[in-house]
Amino acid sequence: MNSFGSKIRVTIFGESHGPAIGCVLEGLPAGESIDFEALKAFLERRAPGRNALGTSRKESDAPEFLSGVLDGVLTGAPVCAVIRNADHHSGDYAQLKDLPRPGHADYPSAVKFHGFNDVRGGGIFSGRLTAPLCVAGGILLQLLERRGIVIGAQIQRIHKSVGAAFDPVAVSAGLLRRLNGMEFPTLEESRGAAMREEILSASAQGDSVGGVVECAVTGFPAGVGDPMFDGLENRLAQVLFAIPAVKGVEFGAGFQVAELYGSENNDSFVMEGDTIRTATNRCGGILGGISTGMPLVFRAAFKPTPSIGKPQQTVSLSRREGVELVIRGRHDPCVVLRAVPVVMAATALALYDALP
Amino acid sequence: MNSFGSKIRVTIFGESHGPAIGCVLEGLPAGESIDFEALKAFLERRAPGRNALGTSRKESDAPEFLSGVLDGVLTGAPVCAVIRNADHHSGDYAQLKDLPRPGHADYPSAVKFHGFNDVRGGGIFSGRLTAPLCVAGGILLQLLERRGIVIGAQIQRIHKSVGAAFDPVAVSAGLLRRLNGMEFPTLEESRGAAMREEILSASAQGDSVGGVVECAVTGFPAGVGDPMFDGLENRLAQVLFAIPAVKGVEFGAGFQVAELYGSENNDSFVMEGDTIRTATNRCGGILGGISTGMPLVFRAAFKPTPSIGKPQQTVSLSRREGVELVIRGRHDPCVVLRAVPVVMAATALALYDALP
Amino acid sequence: MNSFGSKIRVTIFGESHGPAIGCVLEGLPAGESIDFEALKAFLERRAPGRNALGTSRKESDAPEFLSGVLDGVLTGAPVCAVIRNADHHSGDYAQLKDLPRPGHADYPSAVKFHGFNDVRGGGIFSGRLTAPLCVAGGILLQLLERRGIVIGAQIQRIHKSVGAAFDPVAVSAGLLRRLNGMEFPTLEESRGAAMREEILSASAQGDSVGGVVECAVTGFPAGVGDPMFDGLENRLAQVLFAIPAVKGVEFGAGFQVAELYGSENNDSFVMEGDTIRTATNRCGGILGGISTGMPLVFRAAFKPTPSIGKPQQTVSLSRREGVELVIRGRHDPCVVLRAVPVVMAATALALYDALP
Amino acid sequence: MNSFGSKIRVTIFGESHGPAIGCVLEGLPAGESIDFEALKAFLERRAPGRNALGTSRKESDAPEFLSGVLDGVLTGAPVCAVIRNADHHSGDYAQLKDLPRPGHADYPSAVKFHGFNDVRGGGIFSGRLTAPLCVAGGILLQLLERRGIVIGAQIQRIHKSVGAAFDPVAVSAGLLRRLNGMEFPTLEESRGAAMREEILSASAQGDSVGGVVECAVTGFPAGVGDPMFDGLENRLAQVLFAIPAVKGVEFGAGFQVAELYGSENNDSFVMEGDTIRTATNRCGGILGGISTGMPLVFRAAFKPTPSIGKPQQTVSLSRREGVELVIRGRHDPCVVLRAVPVVMAATALALYDALP
Repeated sequence: MNSFGSKIRVTIFGESHGPAIGCVLEGLPAGESIDFEALKAFLERRAPGRNALGTSRKESDAPEFLSGVLDGVLTGAPVCAVIRNADHHSGDYAQLKDLPRPGHADYPSAVKFHGFNDVRGGGIFSGRLTAPLCVAGGILLQLLERRGIVIGAQIQRIHKSVGAAFDPVAVSAGLLRRLNGMEFPTLEESRGAAMREEILSASAQGDSVGGVVECAVTGFPAGVGDPMFDGLENRLAQVLFAIPAVKGVEFGAGFQVAELYGSENNDSFVMEGDTIRTATNRCGGILGGISTGMPLVFRAAFKPTPSIGKPQQTVSLSRREGVELVIRGRHDPCVVLRAVPVVMAATALALYDALP
Repeated sequence: MNSFGSKIRVTIFGESHGPAIGCVLEGLPAGESIDFEALKAFLERRAPGRNALGTSRKESDAPEFLSGVLDGVLTGAPVCAVIRNADHHSGDYAQLKDLPRPGHADYPSAVKFHGFNDVRGGGIFSGRLTAPLCVAGGILLQLLERRGIVIGAQIQRIHKSVGAAFDPVAVSAGLLRRLNGMEFPTLEESRGAAMREEILSASAQGDSVGGVVECAVTGFPAGVGDPMFDGLENRLAQVLFAIPAVKGVEFGAGFQVAELYGSENNDSFVMEGDTIRTATNRCGGILGGISTGMPLVFRAAFKPTPSIGKPQQTVSLSRREGVELVIRGRHDPCVVLRAVPVVMAATALALYDALP
Repeated sequence: MNSFGSKIRVTIFGESHGPAIGCVLEGLPAGESIDFEALKAFLERRAPGRNALGTSRKESDAPEFLSGVLDGVLTGAPVCAVIRNADHHSGDYAQLKDLPRPGHADYPSAVKFHGFNDVRGGGIFSGRLTAPLCVAGGILLQLLERRGIVIGAQIQRIHKSVGAAFDPVAVSAGLLRRLNGMEFPTLEESRGAAMREEILSASAQGDSVGGVVECAVTGFPAGVGDPMFDGLENRLAQVLFAIPAVKGVEFGAGFQVAELYGSENNDSFVMEGDTIRTATNRCGGILGGISTGMPLVFRAAFKPTPSIGKPQQTVSLSRREGVELVIRGRHDPCVVLRAVPVVMAATALALYDALP
Repeated sequence: MNSFGSKIRVTIFGESHGPAIGCVLEGLPAGESIDFEALKAFLERRAPGRNALGTSRKESDAPEFLSGVLDGVLTGAPVCAVIRNADHHSGDYAQLKDLPRPGHADYPSAVKFHGFNDVRGGGIFSGRLTAPLCVAGGILLQLLERRGIVIGAQIQRIHKSVGAAFDPVAVSAGLLRRLNGMEFPTLEESRGAAMREEILSASAQGDSVGGVVECAVTGFPAGVGDPMFDGLENRLAQVLFAIPAVKGVEFGAGFQVAELYGSENNDSFVMEGDTIRTATNRCGGILGGISTGMPLVFRAAFKPTPSIGKPQQTVSLSRREGVELVIRGRHDPCVVLRAVPVVMAATALALYDALP
């Protein structure tokens, strides 16, 4: 299934070079209005062709809403939004079909779908499918914000350039909103230049780089999440790994907890007025899968774009060995910048679904 | 819900100091026999009281099967297995109820359940709930093995002591079986002594340590998994984060991919006889959420046990500040060793459910 | 799967002659108390051996609660309740296994489970599995009653003896409670004697009879249910057909609507003080799958018990033709009386799950 | 949710007067071709404006496929099909919004959606939503037919005119195909004229009539279905009640079983060559929720169209009493004829989903 959620359900459909991509969003509350201008601005953060850091390809990512909205207000019926694909010149894809690209899903998906999947442009595995994810998540971000919940994300690392991480106690809605307004959202702006340089340099070599997106959420109430399989960490991980190129997810101190003593890692409880808080927040705002009322903080590691200009070794599905493959076309030398709103959208899905 | 799966469904129930814990396992194939001796041996790997590295508490983890099995063979009906809890002397838990322990789910769960949850021994958040998870997973491990799929796991890190990682190309069923037979399963046995020492030293200080469990799977066929939300990474992450104390999950090269060039990270395709394989396996056997036919390799980071002997600062739920809390009782100074079979069980759940 | 529900989930397990039967009930609200005496009284309505109208077999249907309840109050964790099966003398069931009983699931289930299912006493298809259904439903009946929702049911028909139907406008909580206290709940008490006579007469002939149970619900709020697949009618039908022997379900005027003109069948809207009601209630309180605020009224048709004393023709699974089968043992000549609380329990599941 | 299924999942979206209606169909097998001509012919059976028996309204029900199909073959990705709504002159729907039509979902849905639902043309409750249901079901009918499973349906009753029922033992694929080719599919063609007359006569009076659709399935293998909540009867009932106007569903002898003795109702097993069959088929091919291998036979009762030309009494949502409502526009005097393919489509959903 291509669906997520139980209170709400998001179903994503479409293939990169098919007629259209889109989403169906079920379970939304009737009567909430949608700010389509804000949604458009959010979708543009993901769209390609904005600057030299990404592909120069231009795609119209404007969704048409087919149902569930009347005069800008949710009717309570399923919302279907559709984004038309441009008229791709898919060329002779018979050859493409036979040569699986390293790092792409071409080979395993050919096995899974017995060769009948649409391989053009990556088909259903294309990063383009994150556009409808952003449509769904962009709507939910608005609903969450009305409940005082603000989601923001920053680029914490590009290749070897590492920037500051969120202060998991002090991170504020104001800081997140400021980041969300930046063209290259990173906490330590002075490091931003080095990060951009990493991308441009890889691009110049016909290569690509990966990075880390860090996400924070303020205003999320304590006591949300379910034990075991449906904790906040489980749900967030399930949606974050739905973003192509994510290979690791960690919460709070993450992998670093393995190196700490319990006495270092435990977050002491303190009072702040009448509210119970933790003095530190190494747990990333989640204990036992349930929110503590502190900011949620987590990170996702993105691999370098598998489509690179350099020649690569592959085989053919017809069992020919030692084929040299050169991928043509305009590709993102780094998906991390465009992935920032996608991480936010995925987070909105998981968190909205978890709320009572 | 406390359930996982769509082809099969595992539902876990029980609280640490209630009458019993257990699981219901639906969707199993009729006619498969269960090797109860092998299951018992597997469950003993998780049970407490085995050696100086864990708690000295003794618990009987022997499950009673109430349904779904006749003469040792699955009937196709739901399997319910129950493990009785010993007669705990839960003492005066009114006080316990009021003082949330740092690093535990006490506080967020009190908010979620309005104070009605059973807090004794951690209630539903207790690590003891991994016992029925191992019953379910232990059965599935047997079914997977009959299909040629072998799951194994090793301790890759305890605190500052780091051992070798799996070779993601060469890892074999034989190696995994050997690890599964070891008392302290770690690839680099010479580092095992240092790891044990970390645990004993923390224990002596009334403190605790965390670590990393690395899991590998051989024989898993190519082409399994679903795009987007139900890829293998999504499913595995969902079950791995169900294990108490896991704060990070990564696949293949994991967080390290953020530092690599695309030309370094991509795994070239090569022929091995008539089989398509990858020359390297930085993707951990998963591309686009679908298995490549190479070994699956992934890691989970465990935090140090939050229950420590040292005094800690907390508050009371009745809003008293600056309370010093000393946790009494016998606790694991490190959960990583006992978590090894739990990681395997969780993996079995996710993989069996994903198979067509 | 043996599960129902999305807001709550009920999972039923167990086989008639296995160690135990039971249920897991997830998603219940923490803090609600359970009246175990009332639950016991409700379960006794279903239990066998109460009078001459049913089997003389005695079964202890007392559930043991293994989890989710502390000091009589729901903790919010999954509730598991178990009912032990008596020590059955299942005899030589090899023969039984080979001779499918007419009207029972023996043959199709042998095909489905490749002969590995537990056939003793009907296994998972036994009417005994309605006991855990009543445990789950009995708890939900209490929660619904606290929200002002009262469910009641009556025997409207036994074989050729037909009694009055509910007045779908005037039916009251008081009437339903009175019915629920009757040993042989039927609206028109004068017809009750004839109905009992039908059962006793069939029993004397070694035969069995069917009937119709009619259910009504008062206090159910308007505006509950979902369009299309998850309307109240869909959900109720799904649980009602889970009761063994049900072959038809109808709402309001039911099959009779096929004979009416639109001008006869439509229920006019009227005001009753400030409340919108319908003057008649042929729709059974449901339009478009959504409740109208009027009483819900529906009926389920039960087939005669397939286990009869008379000789019957069957074949053997080993393909022997023309076998005469005589079923021994004590069987209900009519399941309808014991099915009344089961219909109520199933209704409680569907309605509680549908409530926001 | 507006979704059905677990092996496959069908999600229906759209409102009668919104931009479009459609469906997403997940879980279809890659590599199956779709016969679009046959699909079109099937959809035309449901489309309005075909003859004097239905509304004279003309709607284009031609679906556009946005995803999941390439060169006429399923890719294995979710199939999204969209049907554009014509440019409706919805007029001043403020008034419409305030006057709930008797027999329609207007009132309960206004309560459910707090008045924000799209009421124009019935919104999400419109019979028009059965068009995407037929798109999904029409595809599945083709896949089922390739597995030798044929679904057919006939009009068994219109108002007081009753025709013959299927012979549940002898019904053949040939008979079903012949019925599916008829303009007015009814077994007893001589009664067809009387049935049409009922419709035309009601229409002339500005009234409407209901009826009964009977459905049969041949070639469905034995041993399919799940115990309890997911038996074939449960699944079929869940989808059949999704069709607007259905108020009753019965299997095999249905409500009549209540009048039979067990010795009359039980179907004896007999051999037919090497195949086990039943001599009669009062159970409608389903025992314990599992298929017996005999034809499946069941019926759905349809209420008369609630939109009638005659004046009716209603209230206003703003609490005005005693309003006389006259519904204008062209309405079906009977939905039963157009419902025949809808019943088949719904059946295809439930049965395809149940198959292993």
